[in-house]
Amino acid sequence: VSVQRVDFYFDFISPYAYFGWQVVPGVCARRGVPLRLQPILFAVILDKWGHKGPAEIPPKRTYLFSDVFRIGRSRGFPLVGPAKHPFNPLVALRLAMPEVGGADQARVIDAIFAMSWGQGGDPGDTAALVAALDAAGLDGAGLLARTQEPAVKEGLKARTGEAMARGTFGVPTMIAVHDDGREELFWGFDAVPWLEMHLDGRDPVDRDAVAKALERPAGATRPGSR
Amino acid sequence: VSVQRVDFYFDFISPYAYFGWQVVPGVCARRGVPLRLQPILFAVILDKWGHKGPAEIPPKRTYLFSDVFRIGRSRGFPLVGPAKHPFNPLVALRLAMPEVGGADQARVIDAIFAMSWGQGGDPGDTAALVAALDAAGLDGAGLLARTQEPAVKEGLKARTGEAMARGTFGVPTMIAVHDDGREELFWGFDAVPWLEMHLDGRDPVDRDAVAKALERPAGATRPGSR
Repeated sequence: VSVQRVDFYFDFISPYAYFGWQVVPGVCARRGVPLRLQPILFAVILDKWGHKGPAEIPPKRTYLFSDVFRIGRSRGFPLVGPAKHPFNPLVALRLAMPEVGGADQARVIDAIFAMSWGQGGDPGDTAALVAALDAAGLDGAGLLARTQEPAVKEGLKARTGEAMARGTFGVPTMIAVHDDGREELFWGFDAVPWLEMHLDGRDPVDRDAVAKALERPAGATRPGSR
Repeated sequence: VSVQRVDFYFDFISPYAYFGWQVVPGVCARRGVPLRLQPILFAVILDKWGHKGPAEIPPKRTYLFSDVFRIGRSRGFPLVGPAKHPFNPLVALRLAMPEVGGADQARVIDAIFAMSWGQGGDPGDTAALVAALDAAGLDGAGLLARTQEPAVKEGLKARTGEAMARGTFGVPTMIAVHDDGREELFWGFDAVPWLEMHLDGRDPVDRDAVAKALERPAGATRPGSR
């Protein structure tokens, strides 16, 4: 494997990021590939593109909750869904930053995903976050205090910008960084099998065919609606 | 199986609709479930929700072409990609209507998907469409003449509106219609395995859990961006 690490970009707002969290650490650990955990603000990405989130289109929201419970049930992931959705993930994401959790970062992230998507708590409620961290044997109040530092607040925005500069347009995104600096991006929980094939050197993608397809011209913009 | 039929809503613009076309007819035929083929205008759905299509966000377009070629290669689907993309699918969609193709509808759809996504032709070019239909042993000019009828033009719009009224927000969408009138919607090529489980009476969805999750309040709108 020539992949030197995988960057896992996520926002607690996304159930698919929660599912990714259930499997991507194991996918990397089994292959000895380091994983960097990168909280970002999905809402900033949506704003950048003037795009709507899946929960902002009513029939899509209805459908995707069915999809989410199908995945949860069939994969055996604990799943109640957060007490409120959408919620403001800002404090939760700051808590999840490496600058805040340090060596405990993965435990912090796991505690927040578990209390929200797993067990039905409200990750938009700061007191509930602190309680969940305490229950996981962490210092909730101490971690929360660190999220107030200006460098932490700026760091979350900077990390989101960096993710976009690397091609991220949604969450979860897994970026495999090769020894030669080449990067391969994978989007969504359903892309995890492609990530695994990529790490194993058997990614079926045909780069030439993709490049040719991307080079072809547009024949119409927003076709059919004119 | 209490499913009396499956409605397959599609637009030629979508590679995932092309992939759906490769497998959904077989999925239904193997179970003796009738399939209704329903061309619709994806652009009208995007307009309705003020949403952007996958190809309208540059990094998403780049990524999805890789995803498409991964699926094509690993599943063995013929895949060059259309000569232009996006393209105006209006004429192609009218040709694909049951009111136009009659008993040959499936052959018309297959010829158009094959010439475009399969072989690299331009489905936005009327002459190329007629040639593809002729090559498939159909009467291209005769079919094209029928697309000019006002009832056909109106029918495509009406079908798109009907799809939206039934919860469709993207393509492909497969709607399983039960004997008692109940409908279950599946979106995307990656939902085909869920459709199969649903047809076989082993859909893992937990309706109560989904209903409870959908009833929960929003804690924030476009969280984190304020």
